[in-house]
Amino acid sequence: MVEAAARIDGFVQRTPLIESNVLGQRVWLKCECLQTGGAFKLRGATNRLLQLSPKERERGVVAFSSGNHARGVAIAAKRLGIRAVIVMPADAPQVKVDGTRAEGAEIVFYDRRTESREEIAARIASESGATVVPSFDDPAIVAGQGTAGLEIVEQLGRCPTRIVIPCGGGGLASGIALAVPTAEIVIVEPEGWDDMGRSLERGEIVPVAPDAPDTFCDAIMTPRVSPITYGILRDRNAKALAVSDAQVAQAIRYAWDKHKLVVEPGASVGLAALLARKLEPMDDTIVVLSGGNIDPALHARIISDPA
Amino acid sequence: MVEAAARIDGFVQRTPLIESNVLGQRVWLKCECLQTGGAFKLRGATNRLLQLSPKERERGVVAFSSGNHARGVAIAAKRLGIRAVIVMPADAPQVKVDGTRAEGAEIVFYDRRTESREEIAARIASESGATVVPSFDDPAIVAGQGTAGLEIVEQLGRCPTRIVIPCGGGGLASGIALAVPTAEIVIVEPEGWDDMGRSLERGEIVPVAPDAPDTFCDAIMTPRVSPITYGILRDRNAKALAVSDAQVAQAIRYAWDKHKLVVEPGASVGLAALLARKLEPMDDTIVVLSGGNIDPALHARIISDPA
Repeated sequence: MVEAAARIDGFVQRTPLIESNVLGQRVWLKCECLQTGGAFKLRGATNRLLQLSPKERERGVVAFSSGNHARGVAIAAKRLGIRAVIVMPADAPQVKVDGTRAEGAEIVFYDRRTESREEIAARIASESGATVVPSFDDPAIVAGQGTAGLEIVEQLGRCPTRIVIPCGGGGLASGIALAVPTAEIVIVEPEGWDDMGRSLERGEIVPVAPDAPDTFCDAIMTPRVSPITYGILRDRNAKALAVSDAQVAQAIRYAWDKHKLVVEPGASVGLAALLARKLEPMDDTIVVLSGGNIDPALHARIISDPA
Repeated sequence: MVEAAARIDGFVQRTPLIESNVLGQRVWLKCECLQTGGAFKLRGATNRLLQLSPKERERGVVAFSSGNHARGVAIAAKRLGIRAVIVMPADAPQVKVDGTRAEGAEIVFYDRRTESREEIAARIASESGATVVPSFDDPAIVAGQGTAGLEIVEQLGRCPTRIVIPCGGGGLASGIALAVPTAEIVIVEPEGWDDMGRSLERGEIVPVAPDAPDTFCDAIMTPRVSPITYGILRDRNAKALAVSDAQVAQAIRYAWDKHKLVVEPGASVGLAALLARKLEPMDDTIVVLSGGNIDPALHARIISDPA
């Protein structure tokens, strides 16, 4: 983890830790929404790409992602002069497609319901010799995301008592869990997409049900977690919570109103859990706001809804 | 200035300095929109209130403001256990009225067109013995706002070449001009409300024309600057620019899109000037984003407008 932090130093921003007061408890917001590319993903992507051999660099990389990982890989690849192909769902938010394309990556779309992004990426990799950069199932990705946890400890000047982290595949949550071994780790997922929570409860990996309800938390709609991320969170006795889209909308409004921050749905689930009183209040709680790449029309709708 | 910084240390946030790239030039955004209360105003208000005598503290304070100074004074007063009365225009953005009231201040409304807020505040002061806390025409206020400039130098690790600052009454701009004596100072105002610019050009203070066009930059619609702020900016050879509401809207969208920041119209004029190519590009330019208290419906309209 410390090696990862040293490796990516200068490539990623040290994002602010902003004090808040949520329902009377003293809370610190780790603002990865202010990270370059608008999400924490640049950390893991940079850490992975910096470990490619010269030959691997030449052959390029391929990644699949609904958006934030795509953009993180695209930015890291551009900076290092590496060709990047990104496999994205055809229904990804336009803001994420545009962000990825603006970084010079080549985009290949697929249909979320009928095609397998893993197969498409594997085919591209086998045809071009490109290296697949997974979004979470990779120790270098997990270590890179975990550098956000090291920063939290440095910025706070001590270990926090609790860290509340959005969870899709679990790369960020497991990375931070490794980086801050003494804090209570709380992961938060959208209702119905709480497969990490159910996996931790069952003691084995269970995927999201095929009939899972819709959610606007696109960044963390991950159908199945990985043995790496699941294993770390299990060993750390992570606590798991799930929140509704309405609770997430309330958190997005709160971040806008109280802190002038733009936070996307999947990145607001931790704050949503606190605001919905799903946790006993505890001072020195860290809430990770993991990204800000929200569709403008959706953000406009949420912030102007007085509910 | 250094005394002011020591005095208010612990009362205000050290706001982040975030790197950006605006039309190819390396720019740093000083994010006072992330300040407690959503604007830089807490700096000056805290510096002023901490210098009240025990007797003055007992009698309370009164301030007049369209919103951000009101909120800054209200927060500082609440923390120090001082009673605050705020005189606000009846048409102030609801978000600012609510923010001020939430801090426990008493609000007295007046009509911008028919009543004088100075007279109302003076009457309240003479009746209650409260101290008037001006929004810019006071050396302690100017010194407090200037602490943002000291922070910029510390965070950058050197003096910036240029600082671009929104200007209403000129408290922030003149404070920063004093704090960073070697940087080129550029102030930016809304078109028609560019009275500081015209005053600097004429060599004497000229007020805003009575038929000045409307602007949504409510925070910097100041009808007349003060000898203190004007004198400092004149002595520093400050450069002055004016921008249109359309240019400001573009800057608000830019801050939202590229940096996930909520910036209000009056706080976006500096960024607007850069984006509208009103300045020759220069690396190490600092752009001060001075506040984020924008009405949600207006923000929603601006960010969802693809123009």
